[in-house]
Amino acid sequence: MKIGILTSGGDCPGINATIRGVCKTAMNHYKMEVYGIHNGFRGLLDDEIVPLGESSLTGLLSMGGTILGTSREKPFKKHSNTSLAEEKSAAILNTIRKHAFDCIVCIGGNGTQTTAARLADVGVNVISIPKTIDNDVWGTDISFGFDSAVSIATDAIDRLHSTASSHQRVMVIEVMGHKAGWIALYSGMAGGGDIILLPEIPFDIHRIGDAIIGRLKRGKPYSIVVVAEGIPTLNGKKAAQYIAEEIEYETGFETRETVLGYIQRGGNPTAFDRNLATRMGGHAIDLVAQKQFGRMISLKGFDITSVPLSEVAGKVRLVSENHDLIVQGRHMGICFG
Amino acid sequence: MKIGILTSGGDCPGINATIRGVCKTAMNHYKMEVYGIHNGFRGLLDDEIVPLGESSLTGLLSMGGTILGTSREKPFKKHSNTSLAEEKSAAILNTIRKHAFDCIVCIGGNGTQTTAARLADVGVNVISIPKTIDNDVWGTDISFGFDSAVSIATDAIDRLHSTASSHQRVMVIEVMGHKAGWIALYSGMAGGGDIILLPEIPFDIHRIGDAIIGRLKRGKPYSIVVVAEGIPTLNGKKAAQYIAEEIEYETGFETRETVLGYIQRGGNPTAFDRNLATRMGGHAIDLVAQKQFGRMISLKGFDITSVPLSEVAGKVRLVSENHDLIVQGRHMGICFG
Amino acid sequence: MKIGILTSGGDCPGINATIRGVCKTAMNHYKMEVYGIHNGFRGLLDDEIVPLGESSLTGLLSMGGTILGTSREKPFKKHSNTSLAEEKSAAILNTIRKHAFDCIVCIGGNGTQTTAARLADVGVNVISIPKTIDNDVWGTDISFGFDSAVSIATDAIDRLHSTASSHQRVMVIEVMGHKAGWIALYSGMAGGGDIILLPEIPFDIHRIGDAIIGRLKRGKPYSIVVVAEGIPTLNGKKAAQYIAEEIEYETGFETRETVLGYIQRGGNPTAFDRNLATRMGGHAIDLVAQKQFGRMISLKGFDITSVPLSEVAGKVRLVSENHDLIVQGRHMGICFG
Amino acid sequence: MKIGILTSGGDCPGINATIRGVCKTAMNHYKMEVYGIHNGFRGLLDDEIVPLGESSLTGLLSMGGTILGTSREKPFKKHSNTSLAEEKSAAILNTIRKHAFDCIVCIGGNGTQTTAARLADVGVNVISIPKTIDNDVWGTDISFGFDSAVSIATDAIDRLHSTASSHQRVMVIEVMGHKAGWIALYSGMAGGGDIILLPEIPFDIHRIGDAIIGRLKRGKPYSIVVVAEGIPTLNGKKAAQYIAEEIEYETGFETRETVLGYIQRGGNPTAFDRNLATRMGGHAIDLVAQKQFGRMISLKGFDITSVPLSEVAGKVRLVSENHDLIVQGRHMGICFG
Repeated sequence: MKIGILTSGGDCPGINATIRGVCKTAMNHYKMEVYGIHNGFRGLLDDEIVPLGESSLTGLLSMGGTILGTSREKPFKKHSNTSLAEEKSAAILNTIRKHAFDCIVCIGGNGTQTTAARLADVGVNVISIPKTIDNDVWGTDISFGFDSAVSIATDAIDRLHSTASSHQRVMVIEVMGHKAGWIALYSGMAGGGDIILLPEIPFDIHRIGDAIIGRLKRGKPYSIVVVAEGIPTLNGKKAAQYIAEEIEYETGFETRETVLGYIQRGGNPTAFDRNLATRMGGHAIDLVAQKQFGRMISLKGFDITSVPLSEVAGKVRLVSENHDLIVQGRHMGICFG
Repeated sequence: MKIGILTSGGDCPGINATIRGVCKTAMNHYKMEVYGIHNGFRGLLDDEIVPLGESSLTGLLSMGGTILGTSREKPFKKHSNTSLAEEKSAAILNTIRKHAFDCIVCIGGNGTQTTAARLADVGVNVISIPKTIDNDVWGTDISFGFDSAVSIATDAIDRLHSTASSHQRVMVIEVMGHKAGWIALYSGMAGGGDIILLPEIPFDIHRIGDAIIGRLKRGKPYSIVVVAEGIPTLNGKKAAQYIAEEIEYETGFETRETVLGYIQRGGNPTAFDRNLATRMGGHAIDLVAQKQFGRMISLKGFDITSVPLSEVAGKVRLVSENHDLIVQGRHMGICFG
Repeated sequence: MKIGILTSGGDCPGINATIRGVCKTAMNHYKMEVYGIHNGFRGLLDDEIVPLGESSLTGLLSMGGTILGTSREKPFKKHSNTSLAEEKSAAILNTIRKHAFDCIVCIGGNGTQTTAARLADVGVNVISIPKTIDNDVWGTDISFGFDSAVSIATDAIDRLHSTASSHQRVMVIEVMGHKAGWIALYSGMAGGGDIILLPEIPFDIHRIGDAIIGRLKRGKPYSIVVVAEGIPTLNGKKAAQYIAEEIEYETGFETRETVLGYIQRGGNPTAFDRNLATRMGGHAIDLVAQKQFGRMISLKGFDITSVPLSEVAGKVRLVSENHDLIVQGRHMGICFG
Repeated sequence: MKIGILTSGGDCPGINATIRGVCKTAMNHYKMEVYGIHNGFRGLLDDEIVPLGESSLTGLLSMGGTILGTSREKPFKKHSNTSLAEEKSAAILNTIRKHAFDCIVCIGGNGTQTTAARLADVGVNVISIPKTIDNDVWGTDISFGFDSAVSIATDAIDRLHSTASSHQRVMVIEVMGHKAGWIALYSGMAGGGDIILLPEIPFDIHRIGDAIIGRLKRGKPYSIVVVAEGIPTLNGKKAAQYIAEEIEYETGFETRETVLGYIQRGGNPTAFDRNLATRMGGHAIDLVAQKQFGRMISLKGFDITSVPLSEVAGKVRLVSENHDLIVQGRHMGICFG
């Protein structure tokens, strides 16, 4: 069999480990050929495709980013210009036919899953693998990249404790998460955040102020506030800036903000993410061998399984207010807004 | 309610985070009092017990080791001297009665779970929490400390790749795991080990030699070998030394060994372990509040639950040869012996 | 002898290691008593002073921040209100007399050195120790905190490489340094920055654009730009945002910015900073024992020495355009503006 | 001009950064051609030589090990078989002539410096660069690799503190350093070692026992002992094992040992080492351009300079008992034997 593999959407730690898992399993066990498609779906449009051999895989397990390159190209997106969409669709099918690929393995986040589902709809054999630091792909308990991002954010929060306590300040740190607050929740809890704000849970700035003043009264004249970038703000302000200004207004405490930004996506994956990525890559190829196409690889508990792509497309996995870490955090006195 | 908490057995990253989770949940939500028992069960024998307040908890989330101290005291171990055992049992019950503890929370590994079960047998209200870097406590999918140990071991294996490839050597690294090879399996896979040896899987030194020579033939004149300390050896040799000598004899390759040792147990827990430890600590107190005693906290998939202590005692959780990572690793060409 | 010690100005990794070096040397070797003055010079105004014993020192070597707390209080600053300045001066002298301190050891940055010089002017025995992540204290080759900050910034730049190359983007990262570009220079060179902008070196946005396009032509369609926060911008924009917008305008490349912020100041000091901090702390006490007051501890090459406080006050140590790393960097093709 | 570059002896963090510094400076500024000689001096014997282009340099700054490979081949070593030595010498001169190299840049430790001096003696233009984690090359204040090794060792010692204090144990850690105790001294001081043993300073096991018991009396029932691998022992025992057994015998304390081993040599260099490596690489090429051959690059204070190879060969740089860190450490109560 002959497989094409592509990576699409934002980069995230563990993509290269997945590529390695896919390639080693395919080449070593199933004797398949694997081709790398460059820059996401754009590589299918432009026919930028190269064969991958064992020597391409050296060092991939621990390397951040994606050696295949990525893009945000969504060829099946509804355009005002219908003929363009048809043209792109034809170009992609043409490329796949030309290379005689038996399957396209797509590694990506929510947008990629939707595109992969469309690709399956037009008759291509597709297996997809979820990849996102935000952990918001529907249909899997965890996606690789998330543990690494939480790790980096937790390390950053650890560092802010020094400044917060030495200067008796409120430190606000903004972490990634537009719609879903998974990184804020996990890094906030792991980093010892006193207030944690997620897009999914409405907050009341007075209660936040009360929490900070309550800490002062208990002998803790400093606080750590962890906010997801996607919480609602006023006047188009960024999350950290908005919350810092409001806290300073409410409490009179000197408040400083930090926006963690792109360093959450880069660098070496954690051991956890490397193993998850490796397993997902291998299982994708097991499915290819079994000709079970049109599915996304998924982690359920500790088991790797898969779900139909058609169920995944267009959904987002959000944090529930009843999530164990939130209930537990509230019991411990952490303010979620 | 009034609770005593103790930590017993080898230290491991995340114990202090658990103590914090127990205390914050107990004090803040349930208005319980918590007392710290020093040096494991020895503190119950010697009545070394102090109240824990909020100020004791500062910095605990990220701190390695245990602020309560630990020991390997097993007061209910069958002694040749029966009267000593009875004396110890009486002393412990006496201390618990004196302090009027409603429950003893025991944090520890396999030995501790067995002692905790005995303590429950003599009528004490007990909740236990599994803690081990070895991940070999029966009844829980993962115990905290494991992810941190795997992280440290993976980082060490990453470093050995530099030397292995620069010098065209075989590097053998020995990680912890007397009976169970979990650390070797997870760090070996995450660190890109070429050969991974666990106590649970018999190995054939010729096959290992063949794997190393096979790599040479494919243009990779170096290999990384990850071994658990508990694999069988000859003449009482330590695992790494034995395997290194055998490989050198079999293949003629220059081979070097490293024993990772105690640094696997120490230092800051990973974000994953901090959250697992926090959740387990909190749920222990939920059980206390519900008077569901005689149980060990457990992780099943992503849910925290509990199992009867009587089921746990005396068992060890081993790696199965059908474990997904092993099956997957074999497909990728990794040699498990 | 009886010594008071205070920490003033922004927190920085290694302050606690210095406090430990001061205390251990003073107590163990010279049998002096040491008192901790809280929150910088404010503690001298308010008489917030506690004795320091050996038990206060546990864990300090690797701990970020300052256990003494800090403030930006500058009691000798020229006020419009002269009587307030006189009042503060009197209060401070009163506190020092009351405690019968033979010397005040002041740990701080440029502002602190100036205040320490004023304190010496009014007749107090003072020894000061330079402390700043910015490395801009005049009179010392390096101050502790700098190596840690460079380490953190370099690690962040390493992470951005993944995203830059996977997405074929320009990534701009802003590091600390208002007047002096030391962090930008050292982390930019260590992190493989392609363009490095310091407050000390004027830049031309066209040359920067040319450098980025030159890289594209040589097959590198991505670049890393490291900027100090203090470079000149237009319309009050922050450094990273301004440069990112200008680069996007000049080159048409997708450009993203990251502001590293407070995480550069926090967390564990590097081994280098711990040893520098320890040595500076110890030598401060050697000077106290020799009654050589009115001096700032200094590193010259690899030797610890000292300089008169009167020479230090009011100066800033800037990067010279002839600095070896810049000359070297230019030879390697790095653009400094 | 046309240059050959080789790396010889044990691998160490920063070699690849040096290669990058050499190549970028040579190619970009001086328009020289650079050729990579594989596996140290063996590559000169066997004519394993490839041109290096800009694309070879991607990722080198942060990569551990050496992309050129290394060996311990010493072609000018006095052999019983004189004709072999002459043969090797002829082969090397032949290779150099064949490629018309204007200079050979040799990166290596003490052994390499001696070989480089011999190569200069037979008329070859040579510039050498010191490289060793042990910091024992004579003629330079610091060599790259040392700061990285100290960093790794310090991190390991940090981890042992958890176990030492939780279990009330003595933890002995053995770090690299056969003849010179630089790593033990710097990591021991940075890691908070209580006893630090170097090959250069004779120790008395009774004084060590007294130091440990003295700590117990001051309320610290645990100690950290850092030993260089090269300290004298009895019966051929390894340093850590010998010291641990003696301490247990002297004090009755439970004592555990850890041998850090090869992980000290591997992995990413610190920011400090990357910049030192880069500068040394660049200055080597400056010397080549000036035709100042027969010299080793050297760091003196903060300046890069050079010394005649003939002065360096055959010497070792040891720790003096009057080293500032030792004097300072003794004042603080640390036992050096």
